[in-house]
Amino acid sequence: MARQGILIVLSGPSGTGKGTICKALLAQSTSLHYSISATTRQPRPGEVNGVNYWFIAPDEFRTMVEQNELLEWAEVYGNYYGTPRRWVADMLHSGQDVVLEIDTQGAMQIKKQFPQGVFVFIIPPSLRELEDRIVKRGADSPAVIAKRLGCVQEEIGFAPQYDYAVVNDEVAAATAKIAAIILAEKCRMDRNTDLIEAIGKRGSIE
Amino acid sequence: MARQGILIVLSGPSGTGKGTICKALLAQSTSLHYSISATTRQPRPGEVNGVNYWFIAPDEFRTMVEQNELLEWAEVYGNYYGTPRRWVADMLHSGQDVVLEIDTQGAMQIKKQFPQGVFVFIIPPSLRELEDRIVKRGADSPAVIAKRLGCVQEEIGFAPQYDYAVVNDEVAAATAKIAAIILAEKCRMDRNTDLIEAIGKRGSIE
Repeated sequence: MARQGILIVLSGPSGTGKGTICKALLAQSTSLHYSISATTRQPRPGEVNGVNYWFIAPDEFRTMVEQNELLEWAEVYGNYYGTPRRWVADMLHSGQDVVLEIDTQGAMQIKKQFPQGVFVFIIPPSLRELEDRIVKRGADSPAVIAKRLGCVQEEIGFAPQYDYAVVNDEVAAATAKIAAIILAEKCRMDRNTDLIEAIGKRGSIE
Repeated sequence: MARQGILIVLSGPSGTGKGTICKALLAQSTSLHYSISATTRQPRPGEVNGVNYWFIAPDEFRTMVEQNELLEWAEVYGNYYGTPRRWVADMLHSGQDVVLEIDTQGAMQIKKQFPQGVFVFIIPPSLRELEDRIVKRGADSPAVIAKRLGCVQEEIGFAPQYDYAVVNDEVAAATAKIAAIILAEKCRMDRNTDLIEAIGKRGSIE
């Protein structure tokens, strides 16, 4: 039987830089696969279906929810976002590792269904820096920024439910830490009992 | 308060290559400190007191045992070996990481006293290769080799009590995995609750 892949969930407060870290991680690894979310919102300029998101109709999204085909889903400012379950399950089953970048609410939903996932909380070096990042990103209106910052304290409250904490003070260093976490998780004893049994019984892990 | 250091225990069956991996790990890291064992055996040619071992008299060893100054100790072929507790405790307390290379019996003793340590089981790629390594090392008589191999199956039985399993099929790869384990362990949420509390309360981790 092929070894199960690992689901790595990168999460943390809005504007913490998890998207940048996720991109850097995927750029340096060919064995890591990005879980593409489904959404009902319209594509922004340059966004491609099946690359940035699966852009689907509200009806289709509703059907996926009803048939329990989403690992998690949420409504954000009138649009729906969700993680298709089957693709993630198929990848893990065939021994591929999957990385998922998601907000704290979504991560907690996924943890209920996949407690064996590896949950990484990305921490901004300071709340002031976090505010700077959200403002500089320029994607949000002042009202949305204020709302996001108000949520940060609440989001930090979820941190103790994660397996790892990585401070994003420098993207390369934070990315290296997450790569180390993935490598270490593959070595965890509870993921290698087959290997121990094999050498114990047959005297060889081949 | 300074963050506690991490105690990394490299262990596994005799001849599994843990000594080589330990040396390679120490060579590439300046922030990792090797725990030197105390022993009552005579120095071999080239061995230096305070580098390879603390060479001490049997009386002195007995006193350390009685005063609970050893994290673990054992008699091996008429000689005594042990891990001085105070040095390890002082290093960890001052935030330094300590690596300890030890057999499975010793590792299990240490686990009782330091369950927060990180226990890594080094696995030989196969029992045949393990036999080759022990023979090629040339340090042991045929009788000792036979005894060592007889113990291997028993030692593998301890593996499930370790946190991580690393196959030593290639020294550089195995060393990289252990370096990743150390980096990942520093990111574990339960070692970073102070950091989460700091950002939650003051909005900054500085």
